[in-house]
Amino acid sequence: MPIPRHILEVRQFDRSFVLELFERAESMRSTARSGFSSRLHGKLMATLFFEPSTRTRLSFEAAMTRLGGGVISAEYASATSSAVKGETIEDTARIVAGYADLLVIRHPQSGAAARAAAVVDVPVINAGDGGNEHPTQALLDLYTIWKELGRIDGLRIALVGDLRYGRAARSLARLLAQTRDTEVFLVSPPTARMSDELRLALVAAGLRVTESDDLETLAPSLDVVYQTRIQRERFSDVAEYEAARGRYVIDPAFMSRFNPRGVLLHPLPRVDEIHPAVDSDPRAAYFRQARHGLYLRMALLDWILGEQSTPVINAYSPGVVAPVGGDSAS
Amino acid sequence: MPIPRHILEVRQFDRSFVLELFERAESMRSTARSGFSSRLHGKLMATLFFEPSTRTRLSFEAAMTRLGGGVISAEYASATSSAVKGETIEDTARIVAGYADLLVIRHPQSGAAARAAAVVDVPVINAGDGGNEHPTQALLDLYTIWKELGRIDGLRIALVGDLRYGRAARSLARLLAQTRDTEVFLVSPPTARMSDELRLALVAAGLRVTESDDLETLAPSLDVVYQTRIQRERFSDVAEYEAARGRYVIDPAFMSRFNPRGVLLHPLPRVDEIHPAVDSDPRAAYFRQARHGLYLRMALLDWILGEQSTPVINAYSPGVVAPVGGDSAS
Amino acid sequence: MPIPRHILEVRQFDRSFVLELFERAESMRSTARSGFSSRLHGKLMATLFFEPSTRTRLSFEAAMTRLGGGVISAEYASATSSAVKGETIEDTARIVAGYADLLVIRHPQSGAAARAAAVVDVPVINAGDGGNEHPTQALLDLYTIWKELGRIDGLRIALVGDLRYGRAARSLARLLAQTRDTEVFLVSPPTARMSDELRLALVAAGLRVTESDDLETLAPSLDVVYQTRIQRERFSDVAEYEAARGRYVIDPAFMSRFNPRGVLLHPLPRVDEIHPAVDSDPRAAYFRQARHGLYLRMALLDWILGEQSTPVINAYSPGVVAPVGGDSAS
Repeated sequence: MPIPRHILEVRQFDRSFVLELFERAESMRSTARSGFSSRLHGKLMATLFFEPSTRTRLSFEAAMTRLGGGVISAEYASATSSAVKGETIEDTARIVAGYADLLVIRHPQSGAAARAAAVVDVPVINAGDGGNEHPTQALLDLYTIWKELGRIDGLRIALVGDLRYGRAARSLARLLAQTRDTEVFLVSPPTARMSDELRLALVAAGLRVTESDDLETLAPSLDVVYQTRIQRERFSDVAEYEAARGRYVIDPAFMSRFNPRGVLLHPLPRVDEIHPAVDSDPRAAYFRQARHGLYLRMALLDWILGEQSTPVINAYSPGVVAPVGGDSAS
Repeated sequence: MPIPRHILEVRQFDRSFVLELFERAESMRSTARSGFSSRLHGKLMATLFFEPSTRTRLSFEAAMTRLGGGVISAEYASATSSAVKGETIEDTARIVAGYADLLVIRHPQSGAAARAAAVVDVPVINAGDGGNEHPTQALLDLYTIWKELGRIDGLRIALVGDLRYGRAARSLARLLAQTRDTEVFLVSPPTARMSDELRLALVAAGLRVTESDDLETLAPSLDVVYQTRIQRERFSDVAEYEAARGRYVIDPAFMSRFNPRGVLLHPLPRVDEIHPAVDSDPRAAYFRQARHGLYLRMALLDWILGEQSTPVINAYSPGVVAPVGGDSAS
Repeated sequence: MPIPRHILEVRQFDRSFVLELFERAESMRSTARSGFSSRLHGKLMATLFFEPSTRTRLSFEAAMTRLGGGVISAEYASATSSAVKGETIEDTARIVAGYADLLVIRHPQSGAAARAAAVVDVPVINAGDGGNEHPTQALLDLYTIWKELGRIDGLRIALVGDLRYGRAARSLARLLAQTRDTEVFLVSPPTARMSDELRLALVAAGLRVTESDDLETLAPSLDVVYQTRIQRERFSDVAEYEAARGRYVIDPAFMSRFNPRGVLLHPLPRVDEIHPAVDSDPRAAYFRQARHGLYLRMALLDWILGEQSTPVINAYSPGVVAPVGGDSAS
């Protein structure tokens, strides 16, 4: 498939897109190592962050800079006078689209990036919209799996922690629908279980999905453990929170049971759900994810802005995105 | 006239400067469309914002980047330890002038940019100083009129909303003194009327000035409606505020009465003083202003830093600026 | 000596390093004046500021930009969601080291930059770590002395103000251990005296150190006065604070007694411990420091990233830094 005009949600991506993007990310490794490219010289990216995220913002900005493009950046767009005065995301996006060739938007409200995309004539990338999606995080997570294991099919993968509110785990789950012969284990405390709606959508998309509360027994047979943070604010009872949190901590004891060829991921930041003693384990890939994410975002920016060097007319239309999973792939 | 050393207030500009700047802005359109220029390669601009303004800051930074220059940026200069510790604007400016070739300063206090300009040996651009001036906003507003209507003379223009405290409307009014055969209608609620001092200065500068509270009757004959936001905090009585605010909302009904060849402007952000249904009207130019502002600021930076590629000795001197209006023009 | 892998504390520097760095800074003057260099094209610097410092951050970013390198910048790293959620400096550094080729870190905790350096595979520069060190400030202070006086040896220098908590004065004192035949006068109110530990270390390093409370008598014979701010929050009693503060204000009367060929420095920001009337005195070098700092940081970045264009393996090891002072010099 051609690259979408805007990058707003995981359901836009089909398998062929994902695999081509990963190949393109590979070619960015050598680009990044030999200094700045001039591929995007003359293109200007604006990062509009209505909630701060140093990690995601710097990743996009590093990617753009290494491709020779320019960056203008608003780290605290929500605190500016315009936002305080009640300006809509549509108005802000229209104005900044007058300055820049591409917008990267992070916003606390679900759907904010799509609202911006509907009114501007430059590409928009959703860098996280509230509890909804973080599509480039899902792409870099799966790219990391591909890098670490050499494949995206035939995986046994456990999503661990907050599967109800955690945006990263849910976005990755949706993207796994583009893989084949995948078995997903949902491991979460009762208060943080994945919604039935999403779980059934994953099943409908062809994934085998199993809920489990026994990560230890699964450990030897898993290819991937995707650990996430459990947020205290989801729990009304502190004791219940402490019990839930302590239940799935990844520590050296767990690692000794874990598949010797497995890979441990985390979208970060982590607090104590992965013990620091695990960091030096070669299966701990969560810091390598940062560099993989750089290459992946370079590939994405390069592809979007390379394709659209001539003016593009069609704006994002929610009606034409690919369905979740299905057999539209390749 | 040659470009002033510093850009501090509208009264520095005469008619010949304005018209040459607009011609220069035109040539920046093609520059911007063909990628980054290298005209300002080697020049470094510092943006020092002591109150946040994403729009204005990103506009300057996009302009500089598209000209090949570098940018260092302080979005929250007022929150830094130096400002908190009581450092003066003069000290901050002197230090940053050691790093950069041009300073763009936004500050909540009237006269702050001029104070900085008085002590540094690099050009200073005032990007808004409290209730005083926002000279580049006025320039881009008039440039937008020129672009939309093809002329800056013989205009019937209504300034609507907060004419007492609104910096943008007052700066534009001052700049209109450089146009010919212009009739200005001041349309505001009683509590937000333009000061007698400024109104009389405009008359003395050759403008025909009429106060009015009936925008609807004027609508068919106006070339330009410049709408501004009425700030709630100016009103002690909520009912009075609601009445004032509701009185001059621009909605489709107004647009149906408005001159079919007119142009509707707003310095933005807007809240509800222009109804979103108006956005798609071809006379609604307020989003096109953003791109016009980019070209105008590119022209300004290019002119200032191009002229001053050799060290310039004379600092800004308040005594030698052009008078408001008068017949010094061209 | 070769340049250290990381720049973390003054005790890493020996005399030969300091003198070579100053020579390199000199060559950066012409580089900076002739536009941007391309020496660091392809290198990306990340500034991670966990407490804001516009001055220091912009200085590093200007230096990197003028050398042709790229910059990604987090001015409020501490306010981001990751830090709020409890991420360690080690985790943040590891992630950003995946994007950038060098990290510049400012952090409120002593030792934070060293902790980051211990876990990443790119160079780290300490841009101030709590009450501990600010090594590049000390380097630019001594560079300014070298520029102003033509030498770093045989100096009579007074450190004035807060010598107990002031990071800049203490870092400079440590660096003075690399100079020869230097006499240091410690001039501070009783509550802000230098710790015995540091004072004795300076003596052990070969400096002649004298405590004094009579700056006026010393004035005619001093080569350098290094004034610093006395922080109100160090004093429990307001009257005591006012007395301490007023005691060492530098004003025109002091300057008339001060050595006609002396130099007056201040790490800035200043509040009222140097009277503005002194600013125009040719011996007042504190604003020239900013530009000197630019050249010095350019030299530092150029040296570090030039040396380490091939991957460097050895991480910072606290055990191998040079001792304070001693005769390891040259």
